[in-house]
Amino acid sequence: IEDQKNSRLESLLNEVHYADIAEIINELSEEHATYLIKLLDSDKTSDVLTELDEDVREAILNNLSAKEIAGELEELDTDDAADIVGELPKEIIHEVISEIEDREHAKDIVDLLRYDENSAGGLMAKELVKVRESWNVLTCVKEMRAQAENVTRVHSIYVVDDNDKLKGRLSLKDLLTTSTKSHISDVYIPKVDSVSVNEKPEEVAKIMSKYDLEAIPVVDEMNRLVGRITIDDIVDVIREEAEKDYQMAAGISQDVEADDSIWNLTRARLPWLFLGLVGGLGAAAIMGSFENMISSHAILFFFTPLIAAMAGNVGVQSSAIIVQGLANDDLKGGVGSRLIKEMLLAMLNGVVLATVLLIFTWVYKGDFLTSLAISISLVVVIIVAGLIGTFIPLFLHKRGIDPAIATGPFITTSNDIFGILIYFTIAKILLGI
Amino acid sequence: IEDQKNSRLESLLNEVHYADIAEIINELSEEHATYLIKLLDSDKTSDVLTELDEDVREAILNNLSAKEIAGELEELDTDDAADIVGELPKEIIHEVISEIEDREHAKDIVDLLRYDENSAGGLMAKELVKVRESWNVLTCVKEMRAQAENVTRVHSIYVVDDNDKLKGRLSLKDLLTTSTKSHISDVYIPKVDSVSVNEKPEEVAKIMSKYDLEAIPVVDEMNRLVGRITIDDIVDVIREEAEKDYQMAAGISQDVEADDSIWNLTRARLPWLFLGLVGGLGAAAIMGSFENMISSHAILFFFTPLIAAMAGNVGVQSSAIIVQGLANDDLKGGVGSRLIKEMLLAMLNGVVLATVLLIFTWVYKGDFLTSLAISISLVVVIIVAGLIGTFIPLFLHKRGIDPAIATGPFITTSNDIFGILIYFTIAKILLGI
Repeated sequence: IEDQKNSRLESLLNEVHYADIAEIINELSEEHATYLIKLLDSDKTSDVLTELDEDVREAILNNLSAKEIAGELEELDTDDAADIVGELPKEIIHEVISEIEDREHAKDIVDLLRYDENSAGGLMAKELVKVRESWNVLTCVKEMRAQAENVTRVHSIYVVDDNDKLKGRLSLKDLLTTSTKSHISDVYIPKVDSVSVNEKPEEVAKIMSKYDLEAIPVVDEMNRLVGRITIDDIVDVIREEAEKDYQMAAGISQDVEADDSIWNLTRARLPWLFLGLVGGLGAAAIMGSFENMISSHAILFFFTPLIAAMAGNVGVQSSAIIVQGLANDDLKGGVGSRLIKEMLLAMLNGVVLATVLLIFTWVYKGDFLTSLAISISLVVVIIVAGLIGTFIPLFLHKRGIDPAIATGPFITTSNDIFGILIYFTIAKILLGI
Repeated sequence: IEDQKNSRLESLLNEVHYADIAEIINELSEEHATYLIKLLDSDKTSDVLTELDEDVREAILNNLSAKEIAGELEELDTDDAADIVGELPKEIIHEVISEIEDREHAKDIVDLLRYDENSAGGLMAKELVKVRESWNVLTCVKEMRAQAENVTRVHSIYVVDDNDKLKGRLSLKDLLTTSTKSHISDVYIPKVDSVSVNEKPEEVAKIMSKYDLEAIPVVDEMNRLVGRITIDDIVDVIREEAEKDYQMAAGISQDVEADDSIWNLTRARLPWLFLGLVGGLGAAAIMGSFENMISSHAILFFFTPLIAAMAGNVGVQSSAIIVQGLANDDLKGGVGSRLIKEMLLAMLNGVVLATVLLIFTWVYKGDFLTSLAISISLVVVIIVAGLIGTFIPLFLHKRGIDPAIATGPFITTSNDIFGILIYFTIAKILLGI
């Protein structure tokens, strides 16, 4: 496809959506990618840039001059432009910013750089349509047309007072059906949801999806309107949040993808495996301390993987339900009632499973007493595992720690150790060894 | 708060957002909830109804007459109304529908009932603004005003031909800045993304978030415009999808919440635990077959929980990365290269962990040969676990099965069994027993 035939390629690419072009470019070599980028229309280039993988974008930007980068930034909304500037090497940021011709735009980008990436301020864009409450509808429509030039999607029109304090909103639809002589202060809706610049992205996502908002204004500490966040950015937040929790539960500690380097993947995976190793050594030590039972009751030792697996599974199940409930804010009642419920649940599951186990081992091995001891231990192990799985995330959450770390390997490992300890202790007592 | 003081309560409630009222009502008894619902303004009631938990809504609707329900449905968008009608008992659906005064609205709701809940058709709403390409801008603005009455949020204006076939779109902004004499066919944008009524919700979510769309038109098999899907419904789809995968990975097979009944929670959790039980019995049987080694090498048996845990953890890690890559469509390269990469990764992790294990057990137990045998087995177990964890989800995906079922207990259990079998086999060979 590459190399010659520029004009055909060019017209072909301009037919294609920028997100698709970005996907193609992600697959190309650095040289080919830069070549393609330079072929594109300038306004398309900038959109493609925002959709590229971070490492590919970095490589391409390295091959562009400060002036070229500045040109792309001018085409972008301030939030996307600020994200790209934030990734540039420090020494060239200054040069790139000074090359941006639209000084307002440059100022907005620099403003946004100040905010923590992990806050509403870091997510918001400066592009929005705002009108003063003192205007009438006619002035308002005129001003809006001018402002709307810079705004890709007008969601709401925000109404501010003379000090830029957020007062309310106007919907486009309302404006279409109102006489041009009315004053804004008479027609605007004085109730508007807003978030503070310091709000966490997860909280913004919760608010926007609870109230079905498509854009939300962001205010500073003095309630002045400083930006707005649109739902498409929130969709990304929700996805990332879900991926993070999922990876945490699977024992992967950083945001990695299947295509990352082996080194990055190892750094994300090895720590949790190491935790598992320590847990396994603990379990081995516990079993070693019951070594005197091995000659008379070898069968007890054969069931340790079963006990460990059940303890781990039950713990993961109950912790996952709690973590999800906490994430959705839909946990009712106190810790006590939650633990009682989990205990009943674990007891029910435990008795069913233990009965199956009892019948199976009894028929198979013919030693009723040992089978009974194993089964009773299993019930107790399941109950304890359920309680640990319920308690730890609730406890971490109360302490202000992300409860998601309590799922996966952490809960599995601790439940393995407790499970095996309980199992041998109970078996020992019941069998009178 | 309850019982008397109606007027104060009423004015209080009308100040509050419907999503918050729904949260309050979810907590109340059925009697109090119905009482509160009846106090609310009718247009607020309907919004509150859509936000309620399913079981609470069912209880409340049971206490309302068909006429009252029909009144609420009239206030709602067709997609939300159809969702509520879909939950009603069959025998009263007919009565409720016939009580809806707006016959167009009733017809739209009935239309939507036909679509599978798990398709674009089941997600879409009938409310949209569409104009014919043959109109001029003036007619168009007039028609739009009439249509916009029924549409809560106008995102795009869709352009259709005389047979209702989707031709393109107009943006509100463009319309604001165009002369009233132009023809629609001259100003519309002929490119518009759309989805088929039969498309899966996950696919719609992918398309909308890839292209940053806030609404997408839905077309039938003849490319006729039949509805549109808005981003707020897609946010729900993304959340549910993420929760489903998360629960699957944790071994919870149905969509349950922490507050569901013990019976529902048991049904969701017990099958996976049962799988774990079968796996544990398998592991016990394998260990039983190596019973002759127990007197000379008891230590081998002490390490079985460690081996099982490591096999499980590695399997979960690698399958989670693959499942996530598949969900995001960002897996490149073939199965072969993926397996080679995972093998290298597992080897690296395995050697690091085995070295730690070797030193530890050697120092502690003083038996170098046994320690070496355990460590070498660990490396092999980790590699095999990584390969299984990588291969199974890829295989399921190729077969058209949701690869998410391969995470969690399924992978843990199979890896436990394989891990223990490999471990004892290798140890036996190395130790020459």
